[in-house]
Amino acid sequence: MIYLDNSATTNPKPRPVIQACEKALRMSANPGRSGHELSEEAARIVYDTRCRAASFFGVNDETRVIFTPSCTFSLNTAIKSVLGNGGHAVISELEHNAVIRPLEKLKSKGVTFTKAKVSMTDDDETVDNFRKCINQNTKAIICTHASNVFGIRLPVERLSALAHSYSLPFILDAAQSAGVIPIRMNNGNTDMIPESDNYDIICAAPHKGLYAPMGTGLMILGNNTNPDTLIEGGTGSNSLSPQQPDELPDKFESGTLNYPGIAGMNEGIRFVENKSIGRISRHEFELIKKLYHSLERNKNVLLYTPCPEPEHFVPVLSFNISGLHSEETAEHLKKNGIAVRAGLHCAPSAHEAFGTTETGTVRISPSAFTTDADIFRLIKAVNSVRVS
Amino acid sequence: MIYLDNSATTNPKPRPVIQACEKALRMSANPGRSGHELSEEAARIVYDTRCRAASFFGVNDETRVIFTPSCTFSLNTAIKSVLGNGGHAVISELEHNAVIRPLEKLKSKGVTFTKAKVSMTDDDETVDNFRKCINQNTKAIICTHASNVFGIRLPVERLSALAHSYSLPFILDAAQSAGVIPIRMNNGNTDMIPESDNYDIICAAPHKGLYAPMGTGLMILGNNTNPDTLIEGGTGSNSLSPQQPDELPDKFESGTLNYPGIAGMNEGIRFVENKSIGRISRHEFELIKKLYHSLERNKNVLLYTPCPEPEHFVPVLSFNISGLHSEETAEHLKKNGIAVRAGLHCAPSAHEAFGTTETGTVRISPSAFTTDADIFRLIKAVNSVRVS
Repeated sequence: MIYLDNSATTNPKPRPVIQACEKALRMSANPGRSGHELSEEAARIVYDTRCRAASFFGVNDETRVIFTPSCTFSLNTAIKSVLGNGGHAVISELEHNAVIRPLEKLKSKGVTFTKAKVSMTDDDETVDNFRKCINQNTKAIICTHASNVFGIRLPVERLSALAHSYSLPFILDAAQSAGVIPIRMNNGNTDMIPESDNYDIICAAPHKGLYAPMGTGLMILGNNTNPDTLIEGGTGSNSLSPQQPDELPDKFESGTLNYPGIAGMNEGIRFVENKSIGRISRHEFELIKKLYHSLERNKNVLLYTPCPEPEHFVPVLSFNISGLHSEETAEHLKKNGIAVRAGLHCAPSAHEAFGTTETGTVRISPSAFTTDADIFRLIKAVNSVRVS
Repeated sequence: MIYLDNSATTNPKPRPVIQACEKALRMSANPGRSGHELSEEAARIVYDTRCRAASFFGVNDETRVIFTPSCTFSLNTAIKSVLGNGGHAVISELEHNAVIRPLEKLKSKGVTFTKAKVSMTDDDETVDNFRKCINQNTKAIICTHASNVFGIRLPVERLSALAHSYSLPFILDAAQSAGVIPIRMNNGNTDMIPESDNYDIICAAPHKGLYAPMGTGLMILGNNTNPDTLIEGGTGSNSLSPQQPDELPDKFESGTLNYPGIAGMNEGIRFVENKSIGRISRHEFELIKKLYHSLERNKNVLLYTPCPEPEHFVPVLSFNISGLHSEETAEHLKKNGIAVRAGLHCAPSAHEAFGTTETGTVRISPSAFTTDADIFRLIKAVNSVRVS
């Protein structure tokens, strides 16, 4: 089977990821909760993963790297901390339900939000659209780094600078970008106190572009950010206190961590480091461009974006075959041994923007393991679809 | 190494648990999100685990079994749903910080709570103590099934009946009991509508007594329970709606599930089913009683409970060596190759009740894999401690 659904979760996982996860399972112990060797070893591996993630995301204080169960959990924590008492948020029109549904939930607390239009080619226009959405009640800008449906990359550095120029926090949804676009939290100079943060909170899904096991998430806090907790509980620290400890990362890591998942994440990040984001990104872009140019020549294929280039895209492509629902095309591809995702991809707003709400889209998302031959077979399978 | 810290997480995990987890890692795909074989296979395994858990906990509607990242997450969801708008809760004096810290957090919303004293031998007294704590503002009884420190078992069936007699919901923290005490959500007769629920919400930590991988939790809802969500996001269902879907289990399973962990949980529950709770419990009680009677003969050992019997205990034992901090004793045991947990075990209130706040306790928690020889070596190591 050819797996081209890597934006849902990457497959395969690198062998060291599986091995590290399995080793953690065989050496199960609650990290940092006890003083025995297994617990200490688990704590060492968790700490090592934290440091690796900190280095990967340009974070100078590893305690600000928080392990969560999912990017969705990270986003909920971030959003509810900033907007829990009401206020207005600016988001893009391309957001995932992991951003939109928490905001909808907060409507009962008086939260409102405005979706900024995104230009696929003109960052100035996109930034300007965001600026126009800011009002006196705005409490945050929350924005995906790249659309999980159409691969459109947003100018998040500029949008974050825009937020900061209005003294607003910027929450980055890096679910689709971590591993293919470099992301840096802090700006190098550790002599500067406080550090200048590029973002306020980065939320990531390491089981996607960082090749970690499913069941893992990251929430990375800027030096000037101190959100509220969404859950509290045992942390193995300050146990005498009935109050949640303030210390990081404990404050946000109540309950037993997913130690096997975190051990796997360590190797997943190492895999990306060794390959380098640049090489992975170039490889995936080559494949996506090849695909794009082939599909362009098929008159039955509907494409929704210009040919993806790194400046404005991540290597993800949505298309349809005219007259077919995306699910029908996916079913045809499945019969040809090709695994893709069709439908709305949990991002209805993006489909509204592109007029694809009724059909959904077929999404192709490669990984570092995808080959030319995989894409060739996909193209052949698409071209073999007979449209009545 | 002899591992006697199974109340933190069980070790070893049964081989099929590790194998199922590894297989899921090798076949990574987002369950139910796409139509391709890998996603469908993941969805099948997740569904099969849900059905197995439903059967295990006597739940007649498997959609009411919710997969969460941890028991702490389950408890936070339950507690914040019931008490999010203020009110009073009755809890036991033996609660874990996973119950106490969310309640402390809710104090800012006007929540108050009262700790009921627990009798180690007289359930009537315990039930009466809980009854006396109920007031006109009480919104729920929240109670651990068994103390994670002293192994004391609470009469939760009676406490739940007490709650229901006051039309209050009962939230059960089964972190330490699932796998050694049978727990049934519904009372059999599926012709009765609505079913009579024994509890309203059961929160469990399958990585403990159900031998699942870490990073897994369960929240099981009674038929008459419809709590609020703590997080919202993509569910792969009703994607067009910006509102969180109401359907179970989707309502509570936003974001990517820990598929490897859930696949492992399936085998963990199967392991307990095959061994049977009765046999596992008898085995562990035999070991704990043997240990108890040996420690009883050592005049330097401080014991805090009567000899554990199934009616009033789970097979977990706390002790100290007089004049030593629990960490010192644990350190001595560690040098003898024995892994235990010392300290407060994230349950300060329990230590207050027993006057062990300063020293903490050394906790011994066996599993189905613990042998006579392990306990013999533990006894020998304890007896070899020289007290100055």
